[in-house]
Amino acid sequence: MSYQHIKEEAYAANMQLPELGLVIFTFGNVSAADRSKGVFAIKPSGVPYKDLSPDKMVIVDFDGNTVEGTLRPSSDTLTHAVLYKHWEGINGIVHTHSTYATAWAQSQRDVPIFGTTHADHNTQDIPCAPPMSDEMIAGNYEYETGFQILNCFKERGLDHKEMEMVLVGNHAPFTWGKNADKAVYNSAVLETVAQMALLTEQINPNAPRLKDALIKKHFERKHGPHSYYGQ
Amino acid sequence: MSYQHIKEEAYAANMQLPELGLVIFTFGNVSAADRSKGVFAIKPSGVPYKDLSPDKMVIVDFDGNTVEGTLRPSSDTLTHAVLYKHWEGINGIVHTHSTYATAWAQSQRDVPIFGTTHADHNTQDIPCAPPMSDEMIAGNYEYETGFQILNCFKERGLDHKEMEMVLVGNHAPFTWGKNADKAVYNSAVLETVAQMALLTEQINPNAPRLKDALIKKHFERKHGPHSYYGQ
Amino acid sequence: MSYQHIKEEAYAANMQLPELGLVIFTFGNVSAADRSKGVFAIKPSGVPYKDLSPDKMVIVDFDGNTVEGTLRPSSDTLTHAVLYKHWEGINGIVHTHSTYATAWAQSQRDVPIFGTTHADHNTQDIPCAPPMSDEMIAGNYEYETGFQILNCFKERGLDHKEMEMVLVGNHAPFTWGKNADKAVYNSAVLETVAQMALLTEQINPNAPRLKDALIKKHFERKHGPHSYYGQ
Amino acid sequence: MSYQHIKEEAYAANMQLPELGLVIFTFGNVSAADRSKGVFAIKPSGVPYKDLSPDKMVIVDFDGNTVEGTLRPSSDTLTHAVLYKHWEGINGIVHTHSTYATAWAQSQRDVPIFGTTHADHNTQDIPCAPPMSDEMIAGNYEYETGFQILNCFKERGLDHKEMEMVLVGNHAPFTWGKNADKAVYNSAVLETVAQMALLTEQINPNAPRLKDALIKKHFERKHGPHSYYGQ
Repeated sequence: MSYQHIKEEAYAANMQLPELGLVIFTFGNVSAADRSKGVFAIKPSGVPYKDLSPDKMVIVDFDGNTVEGTLRPSSDTLTHAVLYKHWEGINGIVHTHSTYATAWAQSQRDVPIFGTTHADHNTQDIPCAPPMSDEMIAGNYEYETGFQILNCFKERGLDHKEMEMVLVGNHAPFTWGKNADKAVYNSAVLETVAQMALLTEQINPNAPRLKDALIKKHFERKHGPHSYYGQ
Repeated sequence: MSYQHIKEEAYAANMQLPELGLVIFTFGNVSAADRSKGVFAIKPSGVPYKDLSPDKMVIVDFDGNTVEGTLRPSSDTLTHAVLYKHWEGINGIVHTHSTYATAWAQSQRDVPIFGTTHADHNTQDIPCAPPMSDEMIAGNYEYETGFQILNCFKERGLDHKEMEMVLVGNHAPFTWGKNADKAVYNSAVLETVAQMALLTEQINPNAPRLKDALIKKHFERKHGPHSYYGQ
Repeated sequence: MSYQHIKEEAYAANMQLPELGLVIFTFGNVSAADRSKGVFAIKPSGVPYKDLSPDKMVIVDFDGNTVEGTLRPSSDTLTHAVLYKHWEGINGIVHTHSTYATAWAQSQRDVPIFGTTHADHNTQDIPCAPPMSDEMIAGNYEYETGFQILNCFKERGLDHKEMEMVLVGNHAPFTWGKNADKAVYNSAVLETVAQMALLTEQINPNAPRLKDALIKKHFERKHGPHSYYGQ
Repeated sequence: MSYQHIKEEAYAANMQLPELGLVIFTFGNVSAADRSKGVFAIKPSGVPYKDLSPDKMVIVDFDGNTVEGTLRPSSDTLTHAVLYKHWEGINGIVHTHSTYATAWAQSQRDVPIFGTTHADHNTQDIPCAPPMSDEMIAGNYEYETGFQILNCFKERGLDHKEMEMVLVGNHAPFTWGKNADKAVYNSAVLETVAQMALLTEQINPNAPRLKDALIKKHFERKHGPHSYYGQ
């Protein structure tokens, strides 16, 4: 019973994915962490959303060991575990194959910051981590996927508390946040921003990146000590 | 109780935005004005549509001062206030980040008038105001956004009673009208026209603008002394 | 009471347009004709679909005179009247501003026949009538729109019983059929075929038109003495 | 009564097509086979999905002869029969004109393998069989369509148990699987992968195909002796 709150949170967050049009069938998963217990609840592997319930969520620790639950956890579990273990302050992670974000990942391009919809959420292009090396792929693949993301942020000097989304080259997006609900929100934002960026380049192949003053302004409206968005 | 009618109007109009597919989460806001009282009702900042009710609308005057309500008004409130104060005859304003209109705004291009769907609503390309200067952005940003729109119309000699929509470069659309319902209608029209214009350029990069005779005819079918559309 | 059957038919057909995603607001209209009485029932002008009922349909003769009904008929009524008067065998007409078909109309291009989805319905490119002359536009516009369509078919030697759809350049599509239901079906087919044709050109700018043998085969599966599709 | 299970299976699978957005009107059909009896249940021709019921499914043998049922079977029945007869181990077949897959078929291009969404399902580009010869088209068309698919797989050395989908040039997709439900799943996967591939080429015209190590890894996660996806 002690994990009930994160099971409920993970269940509710998983159920948002099909509602928001971010997944079909079983093409995605959400987890919710309880850092005081060092565990997270995650979707079981290959189970359709309509068959989910809170008690089917699997409890896993930050090294990827199953702590509670009879079903096999998501095949992407080790990626979640690595991110929770190495990044303080995140309590929810989402992986989808949402259409536009995945197309950018397949294109191996960062999503350029073209407007305020993007700047309301972060101040940089959304990074696309390069495809993994053959060694990483042949090894502990999902575990290495987590390190591919960590390394991308390290090399670029990105802060995971500000930039809460990434594309893994050739693969698909991961997003995270202070809780599972915020991580799902970030997945929907990423999909929207990814679609707008493609359309922007189609309308104007020379569209410039957003000017710095506007990036700063919009981000600070919503984040930091001088934010004035929301209640 | 004296503001009940505009609270109801603003509430109903806000609720149309997600139904029409113009917003996700809290990416938009509608206001409804009562000019006899010099105030408007506007969506509270950052509150999801499903949690709204008429009594949560915030009453603000045309200088942006909150007159009634316990919630913080939309972060875009000052833009609404400036437009109400300077433009006679408008009683509803909408701001969204709808996908296609926002992509044109990010592209910093006017939406060309390619067909009668556009001409049924106005006779010109839909203007894209240039991105704001760094000074305006660093200053009273939302207040200056209103002036950016006013200036764009002034410089181009546009009439806000005929052209009831604008793109703010790098940002997103604003629309308005004789009431909140009409302003929402204009947001949906803009999104449709913006999508059609992109598709038109994709099908035929040399597609010509609509001929003058057809622009005039379609607009006059719906507007002015010789209109014969509707009941 | 004598027009009840076509009022019901026109009402039901009009209500399909928003369900099929072919219109928003009042951007379309359907009529249903009774040739034995020389009249058709058509949507009233500017009335939202949700406010329609069979008794609000307006009865008009083939010269465009209102025979029964208190509301003003669709502003496109004269186009319907001209087509009914000059083309035998059609008992339903639809006009929409559906997104992809309208984009082709704005592009002033015929929709090329690229595949069997198209050939299941007709054997030619879907014609785009040229934009009307300034004289026709300034004159009896909707009446002349009907003649623009008739002339296009005459000049190209098209048979309106085989090709049941047309784009009017710069404007939007009209479709027709043996009854209102078939005309609505044709509008949805046109929208689908128009989208597929754009995507085809994007995937392969050198995509060839469908070969003659396949055009003939697919059309004859569904039409003519040797058809074997359906019950 | 002896065919009740495949009638139910075929009915349920057919009803998924409109729900998944893969068909409008009657643009598709699903069959479900019982190899122990050498027959399959298939949608009747031209009957709208809303009018279907399990007892309306038609029972046909692998040579295309109707065994039970009063309605005429799908006009594509002979294509299904040929595939069942020549390919062991498939018990469900789907034919649709879904938008993106059909656009690739019209473009006469294979769908390139750009990412893991594709590699989760198979390890090759999705083949587009060339348009059929005039002789095949004028002959027993639907029967020959089956052979066009068989020949394409033979010539390319593809295994129908691994690659469960094909585009027929100028026409549209067919998919199959161990049962009707899996075949429908494959149709939805194909549509998604087809859309992502188009978007990928739009975002980056030089996007590389997926690297071999990742193709192998993702496919083996879900298939074969070392798979670890699902329960």
